[in-house]
Amino acid sequence: MAIKVHGIPLSTATMRVVSCLIEKDLDFEFVFVDMANEEHKKHPFLSLNPFAQVPAFEDGDLKLFESRAITQYIAHTYASNGIQLILQDPKKMAIMSIWMEVEGQKFEPLASKLTWELVIKPMIGMGSTNDDIVKESEEQLSKVLDIYETRLTESKYLGGDSFTLVDLHHIPNIYHLMNTKAKALFDSRPRVSAWCADILARPAWMKGLEKLQK
Amino acid sequence: MAIKVHGIPLSTATMRVVSCLIEKDLDFEFVFVDMANEEHKKHPFLSLNPFAQVPAFEDGDLKLFESRAITQYIAHTYASNGIQLILQDPKKMAIMSIWMEVEGQKFEPLASKLTWELVIKPMIGMGSTNDDIVKESEEQLSKVLDIYETRLTESKYLGGDSFTLVDLHHIPNIYHLMNTKAKALFDSRPRVSAWCADILARPAWMKGLEKLQK
Repeated sequence: MAIKVHGIPLSTATMRVVSCLIEKDLDFEFVFVDMANEEHKKHPFLSLNPFAQVPAFEDGDLKLFESRAITQYIAHTYASNGIQLILQDPKKMAIMSIWMEVEGQKFEPLASKLTWELVIKPMIGMGSTNDDIVKESEEQLSKVLDIYETRLTESKYLGGDSFTLVDLHHIPNIYHLMNTKAKALFDSRPRVSAWCADILARPAWMKGLEKLQK
Repeated sequence: MAIKVHGIPLSTATMRVVSCLIEKDLDFEFVFVDMANEEHKKHPFLSLNPFAQVPAFEDGDLKLFESRAITQYIAHTYASNGIQLILQDPKKMAIMSIWMEVEGQKFEPLASKLTWELVIKPMIGMGSTNDDIVKESEEQLSKVLDIYETRLTESKYLGGDSFTLVDLHHIPNIYHLMNTKAKALFDSRPRVSAWCADILARPAWMKGLEKLQK
């Protein structure tokens, strides 16, 4: 099999890539990285990602890391597979790029802090939740979601009228946060709430969860 | 004039866009945003960027924000102007995308904290430098720059063999940090140091500084 994803099911960045591959109807091998035994901090993993983070990705002789670089590669290279995850019109693509950056620069730093504090940290026994960090992150994320609520009056999805990488990049953190008290941030905004329900129900996302949680 | 950049010279994100336009030999109008009087927090600016941040960008009827979305739009739309800032080969473009993400996700959060603490905060009288934040950011940035040092043994520039958006996105923070004690982080790594000297000496960067500091 030509495509390999090295990662762990609990990693939002790993799930971002897995979900993208399934949306694009691409076969791949999932290679579990034994992070508990620090496999990611040693060679050969470091030759796949010098930052010692999952996921790493291989497509034949091409080796990539950084989940959003990987999904962009998949969306462009396998444009004719599965559904289109990028837009063809240059102006629409530029608008979509704005919201790709908003996810990476504004949503992810806050959502990933909440996912860490409320989900991952307690789950892997790394100590108790820091309530100050949660409170501050929730306050800041509320402001971002207010802007999402307005944006979703203009288009059905965040990047445009169809589901794209922008929405896909959000799914893993939202999935985790839906099982926490931070769910209220999403539920209290009608358009954001409907958008979350829509993207979390995507068959590719559910298939990815099933595949990795086996 | 069709292209407008709304921003302030001190903003690294504004300078990123200005430098890109000059690399691409594009004329533009610079619109100063009176942030001291909170112009960015009011309409009509909020209709250009709902996050109330500079820069905002207009190209005819297209309105964009998020500096890295803007530079990508410019590089793709005006591909035949000035120098090429993206790579044509899909695999090389994928590698370049990795380092675009590394800049946005790994370099920027640390470099912008240092730029804020060591340059902007003292300059605009927002209080004294927080030495703990500086120390922690410097330690983390050192690790990123170690990886850059290795990467620069593989290619002349961070994204590949030619100067691209990857390098351009780094310039504004590096420019500010070269006047601070954080300069030592860059100077102590020979390849990083040579790369910094190269990209800071680009005529487009210097022309941008001159244009905005008038």
